[in-house]
Amino acid sequence: MSGAARIAARVHVEAALAPGAGIELGVGPAHHLRNVLRLQPGDLIGVFNARDGEFEASIAGFAKGVARVTIGALRRVPRPEPDLWLCFAPIKRARLDAMVEKATELGVSRLVPVFTRHTAMERVNRERLAAIAVEAAEQCERLSVPDVDAPVDLAELLGRWPADRQLIVADESGAGAPIATALAGLAGPFAVLTGPEGGFASGELDALGRAVFVRRVGLGPRILRADTAAIAALAVLQAIVGDGGLAPRFVGQGQS
Amino acid sequence: MSGAARIAARVHVEAALAPGAGIELGVGPAHHLRNVLRLQPGDLIGVFNARDGEFEASIAGFAKGVARVTIGALRRVPRPEPDLWLCFAPIKRARLDAMVEKATELGVSRLVPVFTRHTAMERVNRERLAAIAVEAAEQCERLSVPDVDAPVDLAELLGRWPADRQLIVADESGAGAPIATALAGLAGPFAVLTGPEGGFASGELDALGRAVFVRRVGLGPRILRADTAAIAALAVLQAIVGDGGLAPRFVGQGQS
Repeated sequence: MSGAARIAARVHVEAALAPGAGIELGVGPAHHLRNVLRLQPGDLIGVFNARDGEFEASIAGFAKGVARVTIGALRRVPRPEPDLWLCFAPIKRARLDAMVEKATELGVSRLVPVFTRHTAMERVNRERLAAIAVEAAEQCERLSVPDVDAPVDLAELLGRWPADRQLIVADESGAGAPIATALAGLAGPFAVLTGPEGGFASGELDALGRAVFVRRVGLGPRILRADTAAIAALAVLQAIVGDGGLAPRFVGQGQS
Repeated sequence: MSGAARIAARVHVEAALAPGAGIELGVGPAHHLRNVLRLQPGDLIGVFNARDGEFEASIAGFAKGVARVTIGALRRVPRPEPDLWLCFAPIKRARLDAMVEKATELGVSRLVPVFTRHTAMERVNRERLAAIAVEAAEQCERLSVPDVDAPVDLAELLGRWPADRQLIVADESGAGAPIATALAGLAGPFAVLTGPEGGFASGELDALGRAVFVRRVGLGPRILRADTAAIAALAVLQAIVGDGGLAPRFVGQGQS
């Protein structure tokens, strides 16, 4: 599909997509297309979801805050996307937002906020995180958008953990195997778990160590911030046992 | 050294460090210790540099905006730290700052701003980036702080490149080998090069492809933001051919 038409933006939509259909984009994307990107009727964007794939869409018009678009040619058929969870202790807003953005770029399918002993944050704004995930998915050429779960306590997470999913725990105590060693030869599905800035409590590390589905891993000799640890673990996991062997199908936005 | 005394902060200093010596910390760290961390005379911090290692230091007093400390016991002997460069096209401030912070955490020894065809930023504030690198080094238990070079043009960088250093180029065009494959069996020293948000121009990719020291690598099927690409490439490199096999020596700050 390298001959696909150039598009000015990608917009994730829940609506069913098929050539010839007309759909409405809500206030958020409509504002972005009209007032930030300064697009006009007739301009071409991409619309996508994981179920139907990605289509060209021509802007039909803006009215009452929304945008109407007409669906055109298929740009990309749906294909399986990674099944990879990030379980994370909530951290301060700017770092959390960046972590969610980057986790989405790195192919996470599910974001699970986890309260731990040293977690300083008491609330998680799921709507804000979901909006960041949508924006990152639009930007990075994904077809899917990660789900953002309701927060759970660590004990609850471990108590109902699906036994066939490997939980890769970023452990700065030095007790974990180096991540490249730990991952070599492991079969997924996978999840990554990162703690709060204060780290896991020793009792939490003990509980994690007793779970058969847990692999405690080290990320090198430096003490990484929580957000850095999450991004680094996801990047290494995708490179070694994930979809790092695949290449982008095409680059459809931005400069050439 | 797991019996080392608990310290409230780590401060990078240029001064020579030896037990019994008294040194002065400048306005920036003094303000942080006194007004942010609320430390008092008698409280214990760590002071460090790559040449002498890390020492306990007792706060002797605050006066005229500076802090005086008395050097105590050695906490950590100097040891070799990674020789790893990050060459990066400057991007917008918030993302650039985060990239420098995370590159420091991931062990980069030299930060080289590189102007490319599609680089939108025209200036680089080296002092701000150096301050961010110092703060990140203090936080992540490094002994060294990465150097921040003056910006260079891409052609100049390639023209004077040291032939024995592998330049790992994050290439979203799909032409690069998967990063894990490309790195397997490669010997360092290494540098990572990332482009601006608009990517490399095709002529730049051609020039990079002709250089014998360049390895163009792919980071998976999604299009990563420039900052994400830099962090991901560094994390994977450290895990596969860097110091990812080492563990933290001790965790000397924060909660237990």
